[in-house]
Amino acid sequence: MTEVMAGIDIGGTNTVFGLVDREGNILAEGHMSTAVYDEVEDYLEALAAHVLALVASADPPVALQGVGVGGPNGHYFSGTIEDAPNLPWKGTLEVADLLSEHTGVPVVLTNDANAAAMGEMLYGAAEGMKDFVVVTLGTGLGSGYVVDGKVMYGWSGFAGELGHVIVKENGRLCGCGRRGCLETYVSAPGLVRTVMEMLGDAPRGSSLRGIPMSEMTARNVTEAAQAGDAVARDAFSSTGHILGLALANTIAITSPQAIILFGGLAQAGRLILEPTLKTMETMTLSNLKGSTRLLLSALMQRNAAVLGAAALAWDDMGKKA
Amino acid sequence: MTEVMAGIDIGGTNTVFGLVDREGNILAEGHMSTAVYDEVEDYLEALAAHVLALVASADPPVALQGVGVGGPNGHYFSGTIEDAPNLPWKGTLEVADLLSEHTGVPVVLTNDANAAAMGEMLYGAAEGMKDFVVVTLGTGLGSGYVVDGKVMYGWSGFAGELGHVIVKENGRLCGCGRRGCLETYVSAPGLVRTVMEMLGDAPRGSSLRGIPMSEMTARNVTEAAQAGDAVARDAFSSTGHILGLALANTIAITSPQAIILFGGLAQAGRLILEPTLKTMETMTLSNLKGSTRLLLSALMQRNAAVLGAAALAWDDMGKKA
Repeated sequence: MTEVMAGIDIGGTNTVFGLVDREGNILAEGHMSTAVYDEVEDYLEALAAHVLALVASADPPVALQGVGVGGPNGHYFSGTIEDAPNLPWKGTLEVADLLSEHTGVPVVLTNDANAAAMGEMLYGAAEGMKDFVVVTLGTGLGSGYVVDGKVMYGWSGFAGELGHVIVKENGRLCGCGRRGCLETYVSAPGLVRTVMEMLGDAPRGSSLRGIPMSEMTARNVTEAAQAGDAVARDAFSSTGHILGLALANTIAITSPQAIILFGGLAQAGRLILEPTLKTMETMTLSNLKGSTRLLLSALMQRNAAVLGAAALAWDDMGKKA
Repeated sequence: MTEVMAGIDIGGTNTVFGLVDREGNILAEGHMSTAVYDEVEDYLEALAAHVLALVASADPPVALQGVGVGGPNGHYFSGTIEDAPNLPWKGTLEVADLLSEHTGVPVVLTNDANAAAMGEMLYGAAEGMKDFVVVTLGTGLGSGYVVDGKVMYGWSGFAGELGHVIVKENGRLCGCGRRGCLETYVSAPGLVRTVMEMLGDAPRGSSLRGIPMSEMTARNVTEAAQAGDAVARDAFSSTGHILGLALANTIAITSPQAIILFGGLAQAGRLILEPTLKTMETMTLSNLKGSTRLLLSALMQRNAAVLGAAALAWDDMGKKA
């Protein structure tokens, strides 16, 4: 019987899950609503039932070895999710313990970016690497650091918050309450904020002038840039420059073999990669120059969140299984 | 017979060495000139002879198990020192291999800051910790990051260059050729540069106006600050603020249990600690606030460089011995 891990990605609106074998094949997938449950206990019971049903209906049959979960503010040491702003339940949620009770198998949990890093290490762009960083560019900027083959959790369990490195003192207001965090510049909303500032700064022609900020998305800016809009292109250049400098600084500290970009904004491809790489290479300390590759995720066309969560479980429990 | 490791600290002018037992007692010490040897081979042969003589004359007798070396630009993976600006020999120096040949025992080598980190972990302020950072504040700013009980060397072997994180784009010119590196602000010469800028910025009374820059040292600034000189105190505040922000950012990435300050500038004590701690605590991301302690080295009154180098050897080879 094929051994599988369930990979679960908890999002604010939907929860996605799948059964993943040791080689990273997703043998079955499913999803459910997150937001409709008033109580987290009910949600986790339903989630466990969905996963077990998926296992029971698998053909050929599979043997569930464990569960890996990626979720916002997921804490690996305690198996809990704490005060995740985009989940309906507040406080400390005992996700791993409750899921383990309902599924009867061990459960490990971490945050989205660390799960993405494990996915890249086992099945993606970081295969065979022991020192690398995954940077997720979406509504925020997340990061997972792998050091000597293991996710760096730090003393608190909350290491790897590159998005909350302050890159401009007294810079843009961040959702965390401080100012100048990297993710206020380098993320989908950060890109839109840069467009707004540029439009305010000088009277230039741009198709983006016709879109209200409340409706403008990173996709609008990407399409405008692809159509040659100068403001949109400048916004990408500025975003890439700020990211490139932050990556040069992260290279000085952790010296990774690769930095892997993942997520919505990374799908802008060359628009974001080229200015990032240019600044990163210029700004990297001479004895580290050329030692770190900048790559795009190899999992963006697949269900990366499910793969990453399952990879965490395989990495943690695979040897015991 | 007591087992010992030799700890060697290679400096540009002098080389210091000692025999250290497993508990961190320095049983014998010695030193020699570095700069008088035209050829690195002659220097290493003489150094090995000095160490073996120290072993031979130890009373009660000791058994040499291995050698740990801390040196500028020391590369752990290859055992070499590469292009160290303050050593008389250029290129790649095969320090570990040659020393091992001459002493007949295994030799491990790393840079000064990583050696200091091992010293703090085995015998100093980081005893029992698995995640911490040592920051050495001297003529430059060095750092050693310990992650999950091991020095973080990164893919290149050159991780841990906090001093070369760019904190101000287009800021002060650094010896590395780039601009705005942390060590141009936070180091003994950085402190003096800050005094110069402050004296230039506004006509304020200060005892430091009577000292030419070519003669001004961090000690002058420390003494002036202790005597109540406002410019000197402001220079420490500014230095501590810049360091505090850099440490808040390093906490966001590695989430250490402690950050340990070491070296000449750290001897200014509260003058540097207080402004650093204030900014570090204010600027730390909320879910990491209070999780990292700022400490002074516990080895500053001892021969920390020798202890650190020996600690590296004990950590690496102690289990096999």
